[in-house]
Amino acid sequence: MTAVPINTSRLSASSIKDVQVNYYLIPLPEVLSDAKHGDHTHFELVTCTITCNDGVSGTGYTYTGGKGGKAIYSLVKDDLANFLHSKDADCVEAIWEQLQYHLHYVGRGGLASFAISTIDIALWDIRCKRINQPLWRLAGGFDNRTPCYAGGIDLNFDENKLKSHIEGYLNKGFTAVKIKVGKDDVEEDIARVAAIRKHIGSDIKFMVDANYSMSPAQAIRFAKAIEQYDIHWFEEPTIPDDYQSYARIAEATSIPIAMGENLHTVYEFNYAIQQSKLAYLQPDASNIGGITGWLKVASLAHINNLKVCSHGMQELHVSLMASQPNAGMMEYHSFPIDTYTTHPVSLDKQGYALAPNAIGTGVTFDDVKLSPYQIK
Amino acid sequence: MTAVPINTSRLSASSIKDVQVNYYLIPLPEVLSDAKHGDHTHFELVTCTITCNDGVSGTGYTYTGGKGGKAIYSLVKDDLANFLHSKDADCVEAIWEQLQYHLHYVGRGGLASFAISTIDIALWDIRCKRINQPLWRLAGGFDNRTPCYAGGIDLNFDENKLKSHIEGYLNKGFTAVKIKVGKDDVEEDIARVAAIRKHIGSDIKFMVDANYSMSPAQAIRFAKAIEQYDIHWFEEPTIPDDYQSYARIAEATSIPIAMGENLHTVYEFNYAIQQSKLAYLQPDASNIGGITGWLKVASLAHINNLKVCSHGMQELHVSLMASQPNAGMMEYHSFPIDTYTTHPVSLDKQGYALAPNAIGTGVTFDDVKLSPYQIK
Ligand SMILES: [Mg+2]
Ligand SMILES: [Mg+2]
Repeated sequence: MTAVPINTSRLSASSIKDVQVNYYLIPLPEVLSDAKHGDHTHFELVTCTITCNDGVSGTGYTYTGGKGGKAIYSLVKDDLANFLHSKDADCVEAIWEQLQYHLHYVGRGGLASFAISTIDIALWDIRCKRINQPLWRLAGGFDNRTPCYAGGIDLNFDENKLKSHIEGYLNKGFTAVKIKVGKDDVEEDIARVAAIRKHIGSDIKFMVDANYSMSPAQAIRFAKAIEQYDIHWFEEPTIPDDYQSYARIAEATSIPIAMGENLHTVYEFNYAIQQSKLAYLQPDASNIGGITGWLKVASLAHINNLKVCSHGMQELHVSLMASQPNAGMMEYHSFPIDTYTTHPVSLDKQGYALAPNAIGTGVTFDDVKLSPYQIK
Repeated sequence: MTAVPINTSRLSASSIKDVQVNYYLIPLPEVLSDAKHGDHTHFELVTCTITCNDGVSGTGYTYTGGKGGKAIYSLVKDDLANFLHSKDADCVEAIWEQLQYHLHYVGRGGLASFAISTIDIALWDIRCKRINQPLWRLAGGFDNRTPCYAGGIDLNFDENKLKSHIEGYLNKGFTAVKIKVGKDDVEEDIARVAAIRKHIGSDIKFMVDANYSMSPAQAIRFAKAIEQYDIHWFEEPTIPDDYQSYARIAEATSIPIAMGENLHTVYEFNYAIQQSKLAYLQPDASNIGGITGWLKVASLAHINNLKVCSHGMQELHVSLMASQPNAGMMEYHSFPIDTYTTHPVSLDKQGYALAPNAIGTGVTFDDVKLSPYQIK
C-alpha cells in the first residue's frame, strides 16, 4: 500500500552529486540565560552545501543552543548524504517527504527534523538560483519586508542591564521587544515586566517568554498579574506537550498566547492549532523541516485564521515572513547568526526587517568570520 | 519558576566517574522487509557502560533499523557523557528528567530519546546490582515469565517462505505469531492472512502489522476483510501522528488495535491513550527513554485499564514485561540482539518467555560475538 514515489533518482543536470557538511561551535559575546535551558555560552551551527551535476549549488543550515549539533552533523553526513546522491534536487518536496520516512524510525521530529531542515534549506537555495529569484518572491511574494521584534535571552540580566539592552534594540530601530520570564520568584518577574513597560512607554510592543517553565496554574496567575502592562503575547507559558493546558491558559487571560519553537513536526502544529487556542504560531525553519516545513505550517496557520511568526535565524526567516499574507512578527533572535553572513538583517525606518533581493535564500556565510569556529 | 533539582552532583561512591560508548553495525542473516522502512540489511547497536566511583558499573543499549545510530553515539559521547560525570547514579529518575531537559531543544523524543534510553538502561543495571536483584523483581516483581509472540519482518517473503518461517517459530515453542502486511495490492495481504491462519490452525494467536502504511480508509477496509481470521491485534494501521484516525479504525472493526514503537515520549503515549482507542500499547525501552520511560508507560496503561506490550529487544523486555500486572504479549523481534548476549531469550513449555535471574538487567553482551561488528 505504499504510493509509488516520483522518480527522483533519474540522472540529470539537477541530480545531486555532492553533499558537504560543516560543524561550527560559536561563542556568544556574553552568557545568555532563560528559564529552562539555563546558560548559553555558545551556539552550534551545522551547514550543508549541496551541488548538482551541472555545478549549481546551494547552502542550508541549522543551529542549536549548544547541544546535539554533532549528532545533526552525523545524521547529514553518515545517514543522509549518501541517500541524497543522484536524487533530483528540483523535486524539493518529494525529497522532504522521502527524508521524513528515511529517518522515521529514529524520528519523528527531534534531531531528525534539524537534519532535514539543513538539507531542505540548501535545496531551496538551489531552487531559487535555478529560477533566478530571491526567496521572498519564490516562497510567496506577499511583501519584501516584515514586522519584527528583538527577542532577548536575558533572564540572568539585572534590571539595569535589561533596560540598557532594550535601549540598544530601540536605538537600532526596533518597535517591539521581548524579555524572558520564569524567575524562581514570580513577583520578580512581575516587577521586571512593570519596569520595562514603564521604561519603553506605551508605543512599543512588548512580549514575554517563559520558555515553558511554569505550571498551567502559575502561568494563569502570572498572566493575570501582567495584563495591565499591555502584553502583546505570552510565549511558551508551559511545556509544549501539554496542548490542552495551553487552551486553559488562553481562556483565562486576555493576553494572546504563542508557541512553536519546540514543535518539530507539522503534526504537532496541527495538534496545537486544534487544541491550544494559540494566537501566534512560531515555527523555526531550522527545526521544523526547513523552508518546506515552515511554509506548510504558515499555510496551515493561514487556513486556520492565525498569524505565523518565527523563532531564531532571522537572516532566513526575514524572507519567509515577508512572503506570507498572515505574517505576525519576526523574531530578531539573540543568537547572532546573521553577523556571520555577508548580509546581516537590516531594518527600514518603520522598524520592518527587509528581505534580501539576492538570488537564493539570501543567506551567504562569511567564511573568514566563520572558519575560526569550525570543528568538523 | 524552575524547581530546585535534587543534588545529584554530590560526590559519593555512586557518583558517575566514567561513561564509555560503543557503536556496532551488525548484518542480519537475511534481508528483512516491511511496508514503510523497506529492506533491512543490518541493525545498529549503541552500547553505553557507566562506571561509578566505587567501581560498580552497568551497561545499557539501544538499536536502530540501520539509520541514526552514529548520531545516537554522538549524543551520548559528545553531549551527555560529560553532563553525567559526577552525577549520583542512584538517582535514576532524577537523571532521566535532567537528561530530557538537557536535550530538550533538540528533542523532544526522536533521537534524544534513543540516547537517553541507552543511559537509563545502564543506570538500572547499576541499581539492580546495588540491590542485588534481577530486573524483573526490581521493576515490579509481578512474575518471572511473560506471554510472548514471534514477530516476523517478512513482507518480502513469498507465501512458502512465510509459512516455513512461521513453522520455525512454532517449532521453537511460540504460541503466537505476527506477520507484516501492507502490500501494494490489499488482496495479496488478505490472501496471505487467510493462508497463514489456515496453516497455523485456530489455537495459535495471530497478529498483523502494517507499519503505518495504510490510509485510515484502507485500514478499515482491510480490517473488515480479515476479521473472519481471528486476528489478535492489528498493529500500526496508519501513521502514529494521526491519533484520531486510530480511534476511527478501532471503532470500525472488532479487531483490537495496537501501537507504540514509534511513540518516543510519555506525552505521546498519553495522547494515544486519550484519543486512539487502542487495546495494546507497545513501548520500546530502547526509544521511550529506557526502563524509566517504559515503566512510566506501563503504569499509565495500567491506570487506563490497558495492556502493555513491547517492541524489539526481547532480552531486556522479558524482564520488564514479566514484572507488570497488565502485561499483554512480549514481541520476540526479528533483530536477533539476544543472540549477541550471553543469555538469549528462552521459552518454557507453555510458550512463555523466561526472565533471567541474573543480578542486573540480565543483558550481558558477548564481546567475542560483537567485536567483529564494532565501528566506533
Ligand atoms: Mg521563545
Ligand atoms: Mg511493529
